[in-house]
Amino acid sequence: MFENKERTDISELGEFGLIDSITRNITISNSSTKKGVGDDAAVLSFEGKKTLISTDLLLEGIHFDLMFTPLKHLGYKAIQVNLSDIYAMNGMATQVTVSLGLSSKFPLEAVEELYEGMLIACKKYGVDIVGGDTSSSRQGLVISVTSIGYADEEEICYRSGAEEGDLICVSGDLGASYVGLQLLELEKKIFIENPSIQPDLEGKDYIVERQLKPEARKDIVEMLKEFSIKPTAMIDVSDGLSSEVMHLCKQSDKGCKLYEEKIPIDPMTYETAREFNLDPTVCALSGGEDYELLFTIKQADYDKIKGSADVSVIGYITEPSAGMELISKSGRVHPLKAQGWNAFNKISGEN
Amino acid sequence: MFENKERTDISELGEFGLIDSITRNITISNSSTKKGVGDDAAVLSFEGKKTLISTDLLLEGIHFDLMFTPLKHLGYKAIQVNLSDIYAMNGMATQVTVSLGLSSKFPLEAVEELYEGMLIACKKYGVDIVGGDTSSSRQGLVISVTSIGYADEEEICYRSGAEEGDLICVSGDLGASYVGLQLLELEKKIFIENPSIQPDLEGKDYIVERQLKPEARKDIVEMLKEFSIKPTAMIDVSDGLSSEVMHLCKQSDKGCKLYEEKIPIDPMTYETAREFNLDPTVCALSGGEDYELLFTIKQADYDKIKGSADVSVIGYITEPSAGMELISKSGRVHPLKAQGWNAFNKISGEN
Repeated sequence: MFENKERTDISELGEFGLIDSITRNITISNSSTKKGVGDDAAVLSFEGKKTLISTDLLLEGIHFDLMFTPLKHLGYKAIQVNLSDIYAMNGMATQVTVSLGLSSKFPLEAVEELYEGMLIACKKYGVDIVGGDTSSSRQGLVISVTSIGYADEEEICYRSGAEEGDLICVSGDLGASYVGLQLLELEKKIFIENPSIQPDLEGKDYIVERQLKPEARKDIVEMLKEFSIKPTAMIDVSDGLSSEVMHLCKQSDKGCKLYEEKIPIDPMTYETAREFNLDPTVCALSGGEDYELLFTIKQADYDKIKGSADVSVIGYITEPSAGMELISKSGRVHPLKAQGWNAFNKISGEN
Repeated sequence: MFENKERTDISELGEFGLIDSITRNITISNSSTKKGVGDDAAVLSFEGKKTLISTDLLLEGIHFDLMFTPLKHLGYKAIQVNLSDIYAMNGMATQVTVSLGLSSKFPLEAVEELYEGMLIACKKYGVDIVGGDTSSSRQGLVISVTSIGYADEEEICYRSGAEEGDLICVSGDLGASYVGLQLLELEKKIFIENPSIQPDLEGKDYIVERQLKPEARKDIVEMLKEFSIKPTAMIDVSDGLSSEVMHLCKQSDKGCKLYEEKIPIDPMTYETAREFNLDPTVCALSGGEDYELLFTIKQADYDKIKGSADVSVIGYITEPSAGMELISKSGRVHPLKAQGWNAFNKISGEN
């Protein structure tokens, strides 16, 4: 993977040399960061605000495949995935800590590439890297990111606040990341079988980018503030629309009606899913890794948001006894199913 | 490892089933925890205080060996190691997030054991588990813990505050954890060569416990407050006394004199090190995993602390040009050497 590049063995540097090398380019941009890397703990200051904390673990072979994931993109994605959780609370993300477990196949240059992607993401989203841990690993690449942010108490959106009649909204479009992954895995398979065939991702930029380099929807949180909308409940779409809607409903003790025809799916996602004999709606429901925001708003707020091209109203909240249902394009009613871990394996049997 | 016990395959439960199962026993004890597990992020409130954050990654085969580490102890230790960083800032730890990567060899019962140790540690130290992530792992057990705490701004002890003439103090005793590890590794080797020979740890409880079940020194932070001592600098001893003293000196831009004869070493550590043909002082300097607190105090504070059996004054801070030196029992002067990752491999060549 790194054959043609300069290779500096991390074991030559030692832990402290590695830490110096990767933390050299860290700058602090938030006034809430009182002390970043370099002590036993970071010191943060959120005067009058609530502190938000979320954490995610990314493991090689489970969450990413280095055969087709550039390290810089992986670093970028590792940050986005985490910031998304803070935005899903209707908060602003301000800091992250980054822990890395590195197997001996990774030279310093690889770690620097990974870190560069992290720093680009942090800079773009106004977030400081304030701490972390580095370790050797016998087990491939391990990335653990904890994100920290803040919100005024009255701004925080929990999963549990949805009320009967609230409109269910989702930002952006869904399913693209999952379909992009199918494409990357197919190209990998072709490449392994015949290394002289170069991957053909022509015209598939959008769905590939959605998989490799997702963007957390800070802009949606800002837009909601601008429109003076406080969602009654919110969650980010990491496991697929279906299980996220179910989380909102269960934690709010409500039911829902979702309309298949309202689920936003990009044309490229739709076409490529069809090429793979996948149902585009199932990709949106169970694919995951979209990192869009799913939220509920009061009907009275509909007029404020209806002009936004970036938000789709896909259904509404019902009383709990009505169940959690999807109304298909043909008018058939399907109960929603939750997907966790093994969604990717099960999806093909879901049609 | 789990052959004789009940085995519930985690893949049967799914991610959400696993999360339900392990979070069922979580209780909240801190008023600063506004919302714990169960949403996109935890919500914390540190009115008028600074927030402290630290994170550590523990990887199977690098940081722990499941051949001789009971999972309950491992869970306990994973928490302690992290809390130690918050205490090293002179703060109080209040929350942790816990991420686990689990390979298929771990049944639910194993995860529950690990988690039980974590909950015991959290309960004992008054800390809430407020979030985390669970994932399958192709790579053995991965544990990532982020600890969160608070302190008044004026109470926080950085590594950088040591002044010339300050006394260098350390809590407890050093080297025991490293020597305990040598003993466990020897018994493992004997057991592998001849499984009919049962491990003989008779009379070695203290050093084995120091390795398997360390305690973060919350009590020392409380004692310092009680004595109205604010250390001028503080750090916890995770990599060995030598590299921690060097961190304090470098970040304070100072030198130091350490006295070998003052370094606190438990008699069992001393004897066992000798049995292994190890220099007990080198074990204290470079062994690590003691999780004691190393701190500097003004000379004027000496009278307040001199009666404490749990704190040793082991040297003093000098001007930077005097270097960082250890005065041996025979009066010889040695420059201190830093150890990072590979300390355990290099230590035997250090005498």
